[in-house]
Amino acid sequence: MAPRQHSLRSALAVAPGTVNLAGYDSGDTPLAPGKKKATESATLQHADDLAQLQERLFAERKRSLLLVLQGIDTAGKGGVISHVVGLLGPAGTTVTAFKKPTPEEAAHHFLWRIRRALPDRGMIAAFDRSHYEDVIVPRVHETIPQAEWAQRYDEINAFESALSDSGTVIVKCFLNISYATQRDRLLARLDDPTKRWKFREGDIDERAYWSDYQVAYTAMVQNCSTEVAPWYIVPSDHKWYRNWAVGEIVRETLAEMDPQYPATDLDLPRLARRLAPPY
Amino acid sequence: MAPRQHSLRSALAVAPGTVNLAGYDSGDTPLAPGKKKATESATLQHADDLAQLQERLFAERKRSLLLVLQGIDTAGKGGVISHVVGLLGPAGTTVTAFKKPTPEEAAHHFLWRIRRALPDRGMIAAFDRSHYEDVIVPRVHETIPQAEWAQRYDEINAFESALSDSGTVIVKCFLNISYATQRDRLLARLDDPTKRWKFREGDIDERAYWSDYQVAYTAMVQNCSTEVAPWYIVPSDHKWYRNWAVGEIVRETLAEMDPQYPATDLDLPRLARRLAPPY
Repeated sequence: MAPRQHSLRSALAVAPGTVNLAGYDSGDTPLAPGKKKATESATLQHADDLAQLQERLFAERKRSLLLVLQGIDTAGKGGVISHVVGLLGPAGTTVTAFKKPTPEEAAHHFLWRIRRALPDRGMIAAFDRSHYEDVIVPRVHETIPQAEWAQRYDEINAFESALSDSGTVIVKCFLNISYATQRDRLLARLDDPTKRWKFREGDIDERAYWSDYQVAYTAMVQNCSTEVAPWYIVPSDHKWYRNWAVGEIVRETLAEMDPQYPATDLDLPRLARRLAPPY
Repeated sequence: MAPRQHSLRSALAVAPGTVNLAGYDSGDTPLAPGKKKATESATLQHADDLAQLQERLFAERKRSLLLVLQGIDTAGKGGVISHVVGLLGPAGTTVTAFKKPTPEEAAHHFLWRIRRALPDRGMIAAFDRSHYEDVIVPRVHETIPQAEWAQRYDEINAFESALSDSGTVIVKCFLNISYATQRDRLLARLDDPTKRWKFREGDIDERAYWSDYQVAYTAMVQNCSTEVAPWYIVPSDHKWYRNWAVGEIVRETLAEMDPQYPATDLDLPRLARRLAPPY
């Protein structure tokens, strides 16, 4: 592919080959329209473009968009849902948060619950966590044999390839934060009485596995960045940058899809006559 | 109940007894904070209150809110979803548009598809059409015997009463427009190339049944306004009033529910120590 000039997607897409996640600066702000205030304002200004593009996607009813969000606790998946997915129209958008599998989910293939949440034609689906949890948590905590999780990367690529063939455009954002940023955010949850309910002591315990998570995330972006379903590594230490960047990635993607209103063959003069008063 | 001073809900709630829908002025704007511009601005200002109340509802995870929207074609159900439900957080909100029943839906009791779309604890669900379609369309078009649809009013009241007992607060808004307003909106759809895809000639055909629809809507609000699930008749000829009013009804309802953050028994000093650098 020719490089896209000024495209945020080309700036944030995972480079081919061996990935060194430590080399991606989580505090960076590439192509940001300004500092914090200007960038927050630019994020809100996405709303009009997104609304128009989404309306056309919905009217066209041929394709759909899947936005996958991954990242460690406090990386900002929920924040992106609020501040970016919240800019979209609720009638054309579904949000699914994938938590620890329920007994029913665990009794099925790991893609079972994913397939049930895929977007219908014309819709945008956002996943807060996804099928990628199934190559992260079991790998970090060694809850299933390596042979089992290791084959999932190919399964995921095949699944996403078929999904793409059926008309779903896939956008995957890995929200990348530093170890110190996670500490700050966990402390902030403790400090703020309106955020304390989100706090689980287990979140601190999980920090002991930080390096193992980095290994698992590295394998995820390295093994599953494909032409039809690339991973974008979004620097997420700055919430204002993270929100703008995911919004811009979605906007660029929808603009490239360029959905069209369906042609109509309405006999306009006759219909207008039928609606003339007193009818 | 004592009258609620300055409550929009008490102003728009269906009065007990026999309803005369023709007596409800669809162009009225009771308790509006101003004219068009001021009212549109007030609608946007609902966002902060709604976000805070919804966050508390979500954190509390004990109760839920169901917003039912009914109204004839072009009354503005979709507009309310965009402009009011769009103010809510997408992670805590589901939107379901009930269309002509699919073969699978038609093979079940009419409440089957409704039950599947009810809000989980902590969530807000918005219904674009609802179980009330099943006492409107079959009644207007006489597709099922009267004995069958006539018993549905009691069934619906029993269903909503049980739902309320289980912790779901129910808000039902009938978007009331005039015959002339519907004409204007259908003509606007024909005129605007970006709206033409929504136009169906069947929408004009249905206008021949206008009076029958008014009869069916009258029976709906008269038979199914209960203490736990009142109907509000929202004057909807002015889109700016309709959006503000539904937003205000939802805001009043959530404020009355007054959801609370759950109490936590976190040992804050110990947890903060666990998070001290370098950990």
